[in-house]
Amino acid sequence: MDFAIPPEIRDLCANLRRFMEEHVYPLERGEPWRMEVGGAAYPRAIRAVQERAKALGYWAFHLPAEAGGAGLPFMHYVHVNEILGRSPYGPACVGSQAPDSGNAEILWRFGSAEQKERWLRPLVDGKTRSCFSMTEPEVAGSDPRWLRTTAVRDGDHYVVNGHKWFSSGAHGAAFAIVMARTGPEDADPHRRFSMIIVPTDTPGFIIERGIPVMGDDDNHHAEVRYEDCRVPAANVLGGEGRGFAIAQERLGPGRIHHCMRWIGVAERAFEQMCRYATEREVFGSTLSARANIQDWIAEARADIHAFRLMTLHAAWRIDSEGQQAAREEISLIKFFGARVLYGVVDKAIQVHGAAGVSEDLPLSMFYRQARLARIYDGPDEVHKMVVARRVLAPYESARLTRTGG
Amino acid sequence: MDFAIPPEIRDLCANLRRFMEEHVYPLERGEPWRMEVGGAAYPRAIRAVQERAKALGYWAFHLPAEAGGAGLPFMHYVHVNEILGRSPYGPACVGSQAPDSGNAEILWRFGSAEQKERWLRPLVDGKTRSCFSMTEPEVAGSDPRWLRTTAVRDGDHYVVNGHKWFSSGAHGAAFAIVMARTGPEDADPHRRFSMIIVPTDTPGFIIERGIPVMGDDDNHHAEVRYEDCRVPAANVLGGEGRGFAIAQERLGPGRIHHCMRWIGVAERAFEQMCRYATEREVFGSTLSARANIQDWIAEARADIHAFRLMTLHAAWRIDSEGQQAAREEISLIKFFGARVLYGVVDKAIQVHGAAGVSEDLPLSMFYRQARLARIYDGPDEVHKMVVARRVLAPYESARLTRTGG
Amino acid sequence: MDFAIPPEIRDLCANLRRFMEEHVYPLERGEPWRMEVGGAAYPRAIRAVQERAKALGYWAFHLPAEAGGAGLPFMHYVHVNEILGRSPYGPACVGSQAPDSGNAEILWRFGSAEQKERWLRPLVDGKTRSCFSMTEPEVAGSDPRWLRTTAVRDGDHYVVNGHKWFSSGAHGAAFAIVMARTGPEDADPHRRFSMIIVPTDTPGFIIERGIPVMGDDDNHHAEVRYEDCRVPAANVLGGEGRGFAIAQERLGPGRIHHCMRWIGVAERAFEQMCRYATEREVFGSTLSARANIQDWIAEARADIHAFRLMTLHAAWRIDSEGQQAAREEISLIKFFGARVLYGVVDKAIQVHGAAGVSEDLPLSMFYRQARLARIYDGPDEVHKMVVARRVLAPYESARLTRTGG
Amino acid sequence: MDFAIPPEIRDLCANLRRFMEEHVYPLERGEPWRMEVGGAAYPRAIRAVQERAKALGYWAFHLPAEAGGAGLPFMHYVHVNEILGRSPYGPACVGSQAPDSGNAEILWRFGSAEQKERWLRPLVDGKTRSCFSMTEPEVAGSDPRWLRTTAVRDGDHYVVNGHKWFSSGAHGAAFAIVMARTGPEDADPHRRFSMIIVPTDTPGFIIERGIPVMGDDDNHHAEVRYEDCRVPAANVLGGEGRGFAIAQERLGPGRIHHCMRWIGVAERAFEQMCRYATEREVFGSTLSARANIQDWIAEARADIHAFRLMTLHAAWRIDSEGQQAAREEISLIKFFGARVLYGVVDKAIQVHGAAGVSEDLPLSMFYRQARLARIYDGPDEVHKMVVARRVLAPYESARLTRTGG
Repeated sequence: MDFAIPPEIRDLCANLRRFMEEHVYPLERGEPWRMEVGGAAYPRAIRAVQERAKALGYWAFHLPAEAGGAGLPFMHYVHVNEILGRSPYGPACVGSQAPDSGNAEILWRFGSAEQKERWLRPLVDGKTRSCFSMTEPEVAGSDPRWLRTTAVRDGDHYVVNGHKWFSSGAHGAAFAIVMARTGPEDADPHRRFSMIIVPTDTPGFIIERGIPVMGDDDNHHAEVRYEDCRVPAANVLGGEGRGFAIAQERLGPGRIHHCMRWIGVAERAFEQMCRYATEREVFGSTLSARANIQDWIAEARADIHAFRLMTLHAAWRIDSEGQQAAREEISLIKFFGARVLYGVVDKAIQVHGAAGVSEDLPLSMFYRQARLARIYDGPDEVHKMVVARRVLAPYESARLTRTGG
Repeated sequence: MDFAIPPEIRDLCANLRRFMEEHVYPLERGEPWRMEVGGAAYPRAIRAVQERAKALGYWAFHLPAEAGGAGLPFMHYVHVNEILGRSPYGPACVGSQAPDSGNAEILWRFGSAEQKERWLRPLVDGKTRSCFSMTEPEVAGSDPRWLRTTAVRDGDHYVVNGHKWFSSGAHGAAFAIVMARTGPEDADPHRRFSMIIVPTDTPGFIIERGIPVMGDDDNHHAEVRYEDCRVPAANVLGGEGRGFAIAQERLGPGRIHHCMRWIGVAERAFEQMCRYATEREVFGSTLSARANIQDWIAEARADIHAFRLMTLHAAWRIDSEGQQAAREEISLIKFFGARVLYGVVDKAIQVHGAAGVSEDLPLSMFYRQARLARIYDGPDEVHKMVVARRVLAPYESARLTRTGG
Repeated sequence: MDFAIPPEIRDLCANLRRFMEEHVYPLERGEPWRMEVGGAAYPRAIRAVQERAKALGYWAFHLPAEAGGAGLPFMHYVHVNEILGRSPYGPACVGSQAPDSGNAEILWRFGSAEQKERWLRPLVDGKTRSCFSMTEPEVAGSDPRWLRTTAVRDGDHYVVNGHKWFSSGAHGAAFAIVMARTGPEDADPHRRFSMIIVPTDTPGFIIERGIPVMGDDDNHHAEVRYEDCRVPAANVLGGEGRGFAIAQERLGPGRIHHCMRWIGVAERAFEQMCRYATEREVFGSTLSARANIQDWIAEARADIHAFRLMTLHAAWRIDSEGQQAAREEISLIKFFGARVLYGVVDKAIQVHGAAGVSEDLPLSMFYRQARLARIYDGPDEVHKMVVARRVLAPYESARLTRTGG
Repeated sequence: MDFAIPPEIRDLCANLRRFMEEHVYPLERGEPWRMEVGGAAYPRAIRAVQERAKALGYWAFHLPAEAGGAGLPFMHYVHVNEILGRSPYGPACVGSQAPDSGNAEILWRFGSAEQKERWLRPLVDGKTRSCFSMTEPEVAGSDPRWLRTTAVRDGDHYVVNGHKWFSSGAHGAAFAIVMARTGPEDADPHRRFSMIIVPTDTPGFIIERGIPVMGDDDNHHAEVRYEDCRVPAANVLGGEGRGFAIAQERLGPGRIHHCMRWIGVAERAFEQMCRYATEREVFGSTLSARANIQDWIAEARADIHAFRLMTLHAAWRIDSEGQQAAREEISLIKFFGARVLYGVVDKAIQVHGAAGVSEDLPLSMFYRQARLARIYDGPDEVHKMVVARRVLAPYESARLTRTGG
């Protein structure tokens, strides 16, 4: 057992952190990024930082070099990703924002050569953006077996019909990857669905609205209708019926990527809390001299530390044994991390008082993101159920053996 | 000891609740209310509901009949105020929104006949709005002894200079009530400050910006500079040096009014949680059949019940012994209630999943308000300190007696 | 709504509190009370305090005067019971300890004249003690429909067979009230069981052991076997088949009596915490000057206050509408109160440090009692389920109406 | 970064776990171990298991081979120690129980050859036990600068006078290691104290009582008076004035050893919870099928996992950089781990209901130990203060630099 971090990764992270401070944080104080249909993939201010990032080799850390990425070993990516997570603009500035990073990964792993050429390459280059379209308002997101969107084969095409929401990145995307049922309703759910690439200029691809979320009106999430959307059969990803398998390959690592970034958010909020607590005086001493604030700081330190170690451990498990083996670990960090993230940001706000809830600081934005963290990627309760079932399985078996059941 | 609620108040609350459902809740789905300088006091949609409310006698429940209000006994107001709190638009629709209600109360109690005629009457009528301007960015809000804004007497005028923020209602207000230092810096803090009425058209009254709070860009809070604002000496409220006393008279009841409304918010979120839990199916049963959701519901029920009883008890204490006697009780409900409010809304959101964080429901708005509740009216920690000091005082005395100290 | 407490009850409570301090608390530092078969009903030290209590009229507050009790109105009993709860010896010293108080109540309400003469009168006089024998190790206590102990009619007798545990008071009791199945296994559970008086000198009444609980080896809980215990048919309480109904009548008020006493425990722990915090110095100031300790004190104050108001409200509901109407309120205070009790005692211990976990103070004993509080009288989770089901019922109905289900 | 555990350690742990199940757990159901003055070092039942352990090489895992121990690398000891912690009898059965293990470590590191021969060797062999005597009732344990016990040099002797409590292991010990002031009261605290070996047969070494703790009357903690205890000057450990330094060397690793064992306690309680949840049926299904129990299980899993990783990380830090460098990490696991331990044991008890609080299972004992865990080795709040101060130090410096302070 060895917890040492290689010096070159320490250095990379330190440099990247400076890059964030100099170029990315200032974006937070600028015009908010509102995605628009027909607009550029990225606003000008972000594009400028992207250019600088590319020049430094800070680009697409999540992809192998052959795919146009930085080719970082997975364990190192954890550390890098934490730094990127320190600002909501971090991932976009280095070409790693959701849902594009996940879409790029599955295109790289399951896409045909043609799909890679047409959809992946401009996406990785930052020339386009993409949309991931899975959740439906009528169906509990945690139980995707009952998704209703269909893709019916008609000659050389599929015809997609359905109603999705929380389709991230739809406004201004070049294409959406859509989860649709291609098999009969009673087929094995693991074969019932396919992932299909739907270009957003396909007739029948209708963005109904951006969904305002926790006060943000930024169009990052969209409600989309697919009305007789006709796309070439070659747009299916990885073969018909592989939707579930690809979804799992996408969502598992997607969750750990989010966790890495939450560490960065929590760490930055923690640092702001510490700084402000040493500066603000009340009733004759600084806040940092008060024992309740000290308790908060120590507890936050412990919680972030725990979360980071668990995330590194889950990454190591994925790296050494594969994603399936790490399923429990991924679920653990999902709900544990969301709790830590909320707790740290909440306390950082309380230390700041009125300033903490204003938009002058990123804390208010972090707070709202933290609330989402307990819902997206599967609500905490579903992950807890997953963990409990896996933990309990051997006990159930032992009991049945004993009782002859 | 008698917990019975008089039937006429039960009836009033039931009717008022229907009024809310029919006329007020629909406002939540309309255009958000953004306060603007130079605009009407209220948007057209709210004005229409206000007219209806006036016709039904649902107006200014917080004021005695002589002041133009409904003249409700204080203990009854608790119940009414809970119903009003069920929507962020409730108070405005019946002429009781902050900071106008508090400003009206101190104008009624401390204002001269002329001040009442000129500022209070149109305010109570809903023809104008007002601003309360106390907090300063440079000073911890919980320790107002060090507020820096000054009002210097110059003949028949005061000249006000200072920098305020979280001055609520400034955009579009007719006047602000400003807390300013009129005594020397080393005077007894209880005599050092005055409340002064500053008409917003006074030269030097400068709204620097609306402060976006938790994602809301509605101008309800403003940053204001006072630059040589010259107002008649007759604009001082209740006499020079009475600022602290008036602030206390204003803030104490203001806190309990907020608490009453938080009960309404919590109760509405609770009802939405229960309804959704019985409707949403996941993994083969409704959410309401799951034991963890049932735990949340029972705990929320207990917490709201506790909070309501404590608020009623504090109101009874104010009613029977006066506000000073109830200081501990008010601090208790402030932090206890803010915790309950957060907890219930948080769980209601979690039950709703993605729908809970969208703006399609008021839950997301309630969630952000709940976060503010732990900061405005004094951060929880200050109220806890107040309670602890009062509780500990007799023990300290006893100890000093024992040790001869 | 009126929260005033009548002056005569305030006075009674003040006097009773002094009585506790002078005569009852000293028992805590004496020899622990270990119940023994064949011993006196009470140890000598307790008997001495009982005599004094009787002389002052502090006796059997839970019973009407005709039954030999103090005849206190129920709402006043809440306040008295809180004071009694301040010491684990309080109830025994005034003839109100469990399970005797509950047994006395059902004997009074459901017993025949002969049963009252033979069993109730010496019990109320404090000459005997009794046992309540319901829980079985093989059956979840929260679901009593499956209790296995049987009482089979055989001429003028019942023959009782079964295995019970957590039969409180068995050691040294004169009789046990036993819940046994007298109807067929498939009968309506509400008619399947009877309560039967089993004198402890009946052959076949076998105390297997005292059950040590949380480190206490005091025999207050016993494991009992009933082996062909033959008792007169006249020993059935209130008629065959009424066991369930009597159990409900017994357990509901039993729970609220416990809650009243928990308030007393919490209040005493709170006072000890406050006193010690003002006395103990560490790192140059008293503990009471530290902001985290102040937070604990304020939160404890709020929690006890909430718990007391809820308990009073539940008592008022029972008093004005009957126990059935108050079922939700009773469940609410059961789990809410157990949480409050634990929280306050836990913090009181932490303030005391090493002294807090030693037996020099009653805090350690309170702590262990507080843990039991979440289990006896039905585990918290069962009460939460009860509350949730009652709350959700109208939503379920509305849903079924809407969906035509 | 590598989380792999070497196969030989996995095997050792698996074997040791079987050893625990076969030989150590049965001790829990036997006669409790009550330490007695003049008795054997260990009760017969424990001695029998010790012999078996020695034969298997399971002995004194905390010491290097030269000192008579197993010579396990520190990082491996973490895993072993977790297994030992699964039973309160585990450490004694392999010669590693507190305070002997810590006393042995400082004797080995700081003792003279003669001290090792006379005191360490029989201690390591399990022929004697020892006492550690530092805490005083009059002084906050967390601030040892004010300890009052003195050791005055008188020729070739020291004369020790003082009053200690929570002196662990005093009953039946061969010697105590006592922290006493040897320098003037105003000397640098880091030079003011010495550790002195006091044989328990020294006249003036008076055990006043065993201190019952959380219901345990086992004499593990004692109140001791030193009245003119005269011991040879050669009994000072490591040289006069080194008491503080040695205490720090002892207490730091002592804390991490406790943490390792708490993991074992938590893990065992967790396993019992899982087993019972799959066995117990209530309301028609097993407890393990209920979503609230599943939540508890998943949260416990996450918390134990976090605690274990943090403990391993702290151990690695100690191993690679020394104990001083790991001071923050040790404080973090102290309070984080105590919280986890309590939470898991508490939930395990709740799942078991009445059985969980009886002494039929070790859970009740674990529960009481868990409460102590937040107090001994320094109360949680002191460790939080330590962490906060270290975290805040650079922010304070930066602030002073900025303000020129």
